[in-house]
Amino acid sequence: MSDSPSLCLLMLAGEGPAGLALNELRTLMARQPYIVAADGGANSLAELGLTPHLLVGDGDSLNERALAACRAAGVGFTPLPREKDFTDGEAALSAVLDAGCRNFAVFGALGGGLDHQLGNLLLPLAYRERWDSVTFYGEDCRASYCFGQATLYGAPGDTVSLLPLSPAVTGLSLAGFRYPLNKATTLLGQSLTLRNELSAREARVEFEQGIMLIIHYPADSA
Amino acid sequence: MSDSPSLCLLMLAGEGPAGLALNELRTLMARQPYIVAADGGANSLAELGLTPHLLVGDGDSLNERALAACRAAGVGFTPLPREKDFTDGEAALSAVLDAGCRNFAVFGALGGGLDHQLGNLLLPLAYRERWDSVTFYGEDCRASYCFGQATLYGAPGDTVSLLPLSPAVTGLSLAGFRYPLNKATTLLGQSLTLRNELSAREARVEFEQGIMLIIHYPADSA
Repeated sequence: MSDSPSLCLLMLAGEGPAGLALNELRTLMARQPYIVAADGGANSLAELGLTPHLLVGDGDSLNERALAACRAAGVGFTPLPREKDFTDGEAALSAVLDAGCRNFAVFGALGGGLDHQLGNLLLPLAYRERWDSVTFYGEDCRASYCFGQATLYGAPGDTVSLLPLSPAVTGLSLAGFRYPLNKATTLLGQSLTLRNELSAREARVEFEQGIMLIIHYPADSA
Repeated sequence: MSDSPSLCLLMLAGEGPAGLALNELRTLMARQPYIVAADGGANSLAELGLTPHLLVGDGDSLNERALAACRAAGVGFTPLPREKDFTDGEAALSAVLDAGCRNFAVFGALGGGLDHQLGNLLLPLAYRERWDSVTFYGEDCRASYCFGQATLYGAPGDTVSLLPLSPAVTGLSLAGFRYPLNKATTLLGQSLTLRNELSAREARVEFEQGIMLIIHYPADSA
């Protein structure tokens, strides 16, 4: 690609988009994202009448319908070996990062086995220097990585959980939340910032050091 | 407690035990564990005809049947305030750690919201110095924390995933696996050690630095 796409829609091979994820996917399509499927992720796309621009994987979770749709759309597919020391999801993310994409909307990360789900959620952290934003979409929530600053838009009453994913998060301030914080410290594993609520339409998360995963459950998606 | 119990069975308020988790719970009962319920975890126990020795929580996920069973068994329950800056699960874990328990079999950690599930799995890391072993049981897998050495018992063909939960894991060697490793390094988020397989009835994991969550899917539990 000579021009890097501004947004990559990465479809992993977990649970296909439903509920909030499906709504958000439809909205994101208007931004003409670069669509990448990790193996069976192409099955979920085919069910929505979509084909990826790029298909990466070993083919072992790909169904006939998706493969036929990709072929008909002229999407090249060279299966990776099945015996390899990385997942299809990592191969797909790595390929798009090589193409210069820095903003990711990730679908199909949840569902499937616990190991796949955790692996998918943590995967971007192995490539931290190479992207600007990653948001995962699930049936009732969206989850975004935060490295110090985030503004959340929602409705008062929305549940928001913040999970530390570094050994510590320091200087943490929350505004626009029912339980605000001012320069607090929280540790990996602590539940201090779980199950907070928005108290305003716009809320602010700021911290000095660390990594958090912000999980937002919009009440209107229930 | 004058003598600290050797094993604590901690029942959280997620998905009640089924499949592998239910089998393992029945086996563990023979060891007469100290049983602790975090709020609605007592509901899952009541369905199995069990009552906890200790019930900790704010009561908002506890049903009448479980509460009645606890009262009948003489289990004291002083509800925590609903507005608090930690989860019922953290309160329960903390209470048992204060009682000197250092080995935990955790049920009900999975299912429920993504934030609860991640929060439950990461929770022990906030108290790392105060326990020796933590194993989570799910319907088709068990997941244990490892800080450098573990021996796994299973059958050739069992799927085993190892997830780094520290920024890096160094000097990682795997023996008794289909894809062995010798003094390798892997990073948080990397999929190098996902979806390996046992090649023997006994396998060995060793590393020099870091934290891993080992998720074992015994083929015979499927």
